[in-house]
Amino acid sequence: MLSFENDYSEGAHPQILQRLVDTNFVQAPGYSTDEFCASAREKIKEACGCPEAQVFFLAGGTQTNAVVIRTMLQQYEGVLSAVTGHVNCHEAGAIEYTGHKVLTLPQHEGKIDPAELDAYMKAFYADGSHEHMVFPGMVYISHPTEYGTLYTLSELEALSAMCRSWNLPLFMDGARLGYGLMSYNTDVTLKDIARLTDVFYIGGTKVGALCGEAVVFTHGNAPKYFMTTVKQHGAMLAKGRLLGVQFDALFTDELYFKIARHAIDMAQLIKDGFLSRGYKLLIDSPTNQQFIVLENSELQRISRKVRCCVWEPVDENHTAVRFASSWATSPEAVAQLMAILDEK
Amino acid sequence: MLSFENDYSEGAHPQILQRLVDTNFVQAPGYSTDEFCASAREKIKEACGCPEAQVFFLAGGTQTNAVVIRTMLQQYEGVLSAVTGHVNCHEAGAIEYTGHKVLTLPQHEGKIDPAELDAYMKAFYADGSHEHMVFPGMVYISHPTEYGTLYTLSELEALSAMCRSWNLPLFMDGARLGYGLMSYNTDVTLKDIARLTDVFYIGGTKVGALCGEAVVFTHGNAPKYFMTTVKQHGAMLAKGRLLGVQFDALFTDELYFKIARHAIDMAQLIKDGFLSRGYKLLIDSPTNQQFIVLENSELQRISRKVRCCVWEPVDENHTAVRFASSWATSPEAVAQLMAILDEK
Amino acid sequence: MLSFENDYSEGAHPQILQRLVDTNFVQAPGYSTDEFCASAREKIKEACGCPEAQVFFLAGGTQTNAVVIRTMLQQYEGVLSAVTGHVNCHEAGAIEYTGHKVLTLPQHEGKIDPAELDAYMKAFYADGSHEHMVFPGMVYISHPTEYGTLYTLSELEALSAMCRSWNLPLFMDGARLGYGLMSYNTDVTLKDIARLTDVFYIGGTKVGALCGEAVVFTHGNAPKYFMTTVKQHGAMLAKGRLLGVQFDALFTDELYFKIARHAIDMAQLIKDGFLSRGYKLLIDSPTNQQFIVLENSELQRISRKVRCCVWEPVDENHTAVRFASSWATSPEAVAQLMAILDEK
Amino acid sequence: MLSFENDYSEGAHPQILQRLVDTNFVQAPGYSTDEFCASAREKIKEACGCPEAQVFFLAGGTQTNAVVIRTMLQQYEGVLSAVTGHVNCHEAGAIEYTGHKVLTLPQHEGKIDPAELDAYMKAFYADGSHEHMVFPGMVYISHPTEYGTLYTLSELEALSAMCRSWNLPLFMDGARLGYGLMSYNTDVTLKDIARLTDVFYIGGTKVGALCGEAVVFTHGNAPKYFMTTVKQHGAMLAKGRLLGVQFDALFTDELYFKIARHAIDMAQLIKDGFLSRGYKLLIDSPTNQQFIVLENSELQRISRKVRCCVWEPVDENHTAVRFASSWATSPEAVAQLMAILDEK
Repeated sequence: MLSFENDYSEGAHPQILQRLVDTNFVQAPGYSTDEFCASAREKIKEACGCPEAQVFFLAGGTQTNAVVIRTMLQQYEGVLSAVTGHVNCHEAGAIEYTGHKVLTLPQHEGKIDPAELDAYMKAFYADGSHEHMVFPGMVYISHPTEYGTLYTLSELEALSAMCRSWNLPLFMDGARLGYGLMSYNTDVTLKDIARLTDVFYIGGTKVGALCGEAVVFTHGNAPKYFMTTVKQHGAMLAKGRLLGVQFDALFTDELYFKIARHAIDMAQLIKDGFLSRGYKLLIDSPTNQQFIVLENSELQRISRKVRCCVWEPVDENHTAVRFASSWATSPEAVAQLMAILDEK
Repeated sequence: MLSFENDYSEGAHPQILQRLVDTNFVQAPGYSTDEFCASAREKIKEACGCPEAQVFFLAGGTQTNAVVIRTMLQQYEGVLSAVTGHVNCHEAGAIEYTGHKVLTLPQHEGKIDPAELDAYMKAFYADGSHEHMVFPGMVYISHPTEYGTLYTLSELEALSAMCRSWNLPLFMDGARLGYGLMSYNTDVTLKDIARLTDVFYIGGTKVGALCGEAVVFTHGNAPKYFMTTVKQHGAMLAKGRLLGVQFDALFTDELYFKIARHAIDMAQLIKDGFLSRGYKLLIDSPTNQQFIVLENSELQRISRKVRCCVWEPVDENHTAVRFASSWATSPEAVAQLMAILDEK
Repeated sequence: MLSFENDYSEGAHPQILQRLVDTNFVQAPGYSTDEFCASAREKIKEACGCPEAQVFFLAGGTQTNAVVIRTMLQQYEGVLSAVTGHVNCHEAGAIEYTGHKVLTLPQHEGKIDPAELDAYMKAFYADGSHEHMVFPGMVYISHPTEYGTLYTLSELEALSAMCRSWNLPLFMDGARLGYGLMSYNTDVTLKDIARLTDVFYIGGTKVGALCGEAVVFTHGNAPKYFMTTVKQHGAMLAKGRLLGVQFDALFTDELYFKIARHAIDMAQLIKDGFLSRGYKLLIDSPTNQQFIVLENSELQRISRKVRCCVWEPVDENHTAVRFASSWATSPEAVAQLMAILDEK
Repeated sequence: MLSFENDYSEGAHPQILQRLVDTNFVQAPGYSTDEFCASAREKIKEACGCPEAQVFFLAGGTQTNAVVIRTMLQQYEGVLSAVTGHVNCHEAGAIEYTGHKVLTLPQHEGKIDPAELDAYMKAFYADGSHEHMVFPGMVYISHPTEYGTLYTLSELEALSAMCRSWNLPLFMDGARLGYGLMSYNTDVTLKDIARLTDVFYIGGTKVGALCGEAVVFTHGNAPKYFMTTVKQHGAMLAKGRLLGVQFDALFTDELYFKIARHAIDMAQLIKDGFLSRGYKLLIDSPTNQQFIVLENSELQRISRKVRCCVWEPVDENHTAVRFASSWATSPEAVAQLMAILDEK
């Protein structure tokens, strides 16, 4: 059965796996104090263009979001997020479990608007009773967003400036960062992100690794004893090398970017295939997740042969469906998908 | 440099890594709903001799302890542990972070005594004001313990019976379970553990896997929506297959037990080597961690050539040091260690 | 300076204070195990018409909301509330601090709509990925709402039936319950509330007491060891008698209802006074909080002589202002307020 | 029935109650922003001799301990306490509920020893793996302790100096502070306490008030937005005046000290009465709690006529029993107690 269900359906990119094999017998100390992590950190800092950055490796996105947000907030603060933000919707309450409220802003194709952030902040401080309310303490965005969309450089600059004017750290969830960076339509580079955010993470799990996310505190602003809090959250791997080796591989010879570009190329094939057949997009995503509107009957038909991800109902007869590509998606698989569409 | 620092200094046992390579391109759904996890679950249930068991895979030990303990306790309850228990000492407050107190019992080479448990419970309920105290709600033990020691079958039966008489679920931390099961000196089998505990985990990280622990609720007693709580803790891997493939490999052709037995054999070599040279043991461990008393000057000397784990000061001139073996320890490495000892 | 700022500007109703004086030298055990609490419990159960109810006394509303919600939810659940609910807005994140998310429903003058609740639940369970989301575990409403409005009996019956059809406990925040019960416009009795909710509280602090809220679990459904959790939250008074004496006084000779009716009478005077002078209401509240739209210049003028509560901006030139009445509000004070209005 | 069960068996000292009556109709803003709180704050700061102190009012001791400890600790830290400390034993896990571990030190009649604190700190930082452990972040003591004992001035100075040398804030739980200050045997003044601790509280509930504790951050070191965290914990009273009026009364004309001295006088009568009849003390308490060893048969006999607090078993035939005095204890009541003893 063909699958475009998500970007984590296979194992790891073969070069990553090979590096795990090659390094398997090297003895290394635990808890990410090993040489592989050290090397990966250096490569990431260089790619980000910020030597003063601090880089940490965690195993997955939800734990990364929870630990970063908890360590960046004061106890009387909450995190601002688009109402569609992953931390607000699909993490089983992981942020609230840390004791902090997710404060919501309107979403525009998954993105937040600096002017609406400004209005929120003004209203908050205008209200005389704000000491009985949750203080907005940082801003969370995802890039690409949950809808596959991207901030433009000017949007990101405006948002960053607004955050700084309100003294709100800006945190970017980059679970799929590679696909954002290698989109045909973006003018945002990794260095821009390092310059414009206070902390972000480079997603590995969804961009070719078995697991792993690299958290970057961009200007020496890592919370004190950050790894102790990581341990307290149960988010520290004894064999931290598992993360170090993978990220070292990802940031050697631009593998991270090559993986992402391949997936973007495949996503474009998918999009073009659907558009040329007259399908409509729920949203025009420039990244590796494509959201296509299908008739329910067609969805039922192709579901027998293709795994995809039901996204949301559009109307009585139509459903939006997500088709995702990854390092493992082949042009042949896309062609097969198109052939299945044409079978009707 | 030679290392006996711990049992997680290398990557994974080659057969596990090979299985990751072999299955890498198989497409599978995420979050441990894949076929590999399903297969591993069945094999584990069979090895445990309890078809009604429920098996879950998590990435690491601290998160497993935290999630299991939190989901088994009522909010007014705490967990009883030996004062030396890993949850009480070396998890950065992960249990307290879930809002629960660790209630301590005396330790005897890392083990707890059913009679002392009984006394604790009687005193607790004798106290008229116990509604202002933390209710003891479950019992945590480790096997092997933090000192490498093991419960005998009769000890475990007595403890289990005492727990049941007080209606306290018994949870066994099996981060190094394999080494316990394959010790020359044990009469406790995996089936005994499944029969005598309410929940336990089979450690993978320290027994040959890259990462991963298999939690077994032994009698259909898994907390409702357990995986949602796992997600809330950030302890769920998107590529759950990473855990499934590894445990499937570990429970194919008894690999888990072979790995452990090899480490036990190597530990015995280490122990014999030290004893025959007149060294003293801090504790007589029958598992893969050997605790040797070294003169401080000797420790300093060999530390230039061997990585080992400083455990605790013994007296002014002596320190207890841990030498650990694993699947990756070779007889040659042990011989090298002995040669280094003999250099003086 | 005249004050209509809120309903807790004075101390306690004189009859309550007198009871504190009268009982001051009676020796009683601590922690609400005293005879006054016992007597108050019986009177409340009788007033509610439910002998199987369980009644507990806490000191304030926020702690009551937090403890009730935490003890009623499973750890993977959140509480549904109108977006304007007090627990969502004005409790400094007290619910999230317990680790639970507040899940929001649209508000209609502060109330929630059973059909929208139904739609929320259907959408939640329709979503295949709901195990990665926060399960809706109970429903929170306030009565009167934060806007002073009331559910009608048929609305409350419909909401209660909807909650029961989804197996969601219904919790009513009755911080100002008395004013709801004694409104001229209500057909909801205390017995209706006891019949239609699973837990509610009878607010004392804002209805004549120095402090105190009486939580009623309506059908023997109090969480196990509820007072231990109350203690854990720091919400248990050593001199529990302070709460018992006050509630015993409030439920003797219908004092609670008399206090509330007096405030309603005064609120009607206030409303009539404003309406007859051509002012507009932000919302037509049938309870002791009146929300009047004032020109900003007028607000500024009268603020020199009257304390009132700025509620929210209406437009550039107008602001909604809350005028609250209580047991301590006199017709003379209302007349003074009107005189101040007429001064312009 | 006679009661020496505790020091919170009656209501409030009549002068406090009278102040509540006298001020009842004064209109005041809520949440401790009223004039009574302001006045009480000034009086307390003067009594403490530290104009730069910040004073806050909370309703009870457990919530005060939880809020102070949580706001003083970093998230990777725990609080050091004597193993017998109230926060470790009798608060239903309120500290752990905030996510922090209580780290225990040995107790000596309820007190901790600076040398043992020093040893703990040295061992902690000596251990290479301390980043996987809970960092000791502050020190909690009670004065009087749970056994009624007191630090001497030199003991308190030594402990304070040790805390400062390790950069550990020192927090004194003064639930019964008055009795400590007015003991015949103390050389510690309120000014000493303000000078030697970083934060402490002046207990009201157990020293004549209906409820209330005054937290003093001694050198302008109150955590930012402390009252927002108080609100988040549900520990803020809408009618904050209830606390302000009482503390204003307690710190007018030295009422706080007079109440405490009266109780000390009565405790001395009790102690002398028991000693002259040949009874033994469990511990020689210089404060208002007297711990007497009774034969079990005698305890049974007098329990029919006197309420007292069973403390702990001493041996098979003897039990330690606490007799507490308060503002409300009369010489006649003590005489009655002695008469009951003599009845046998």
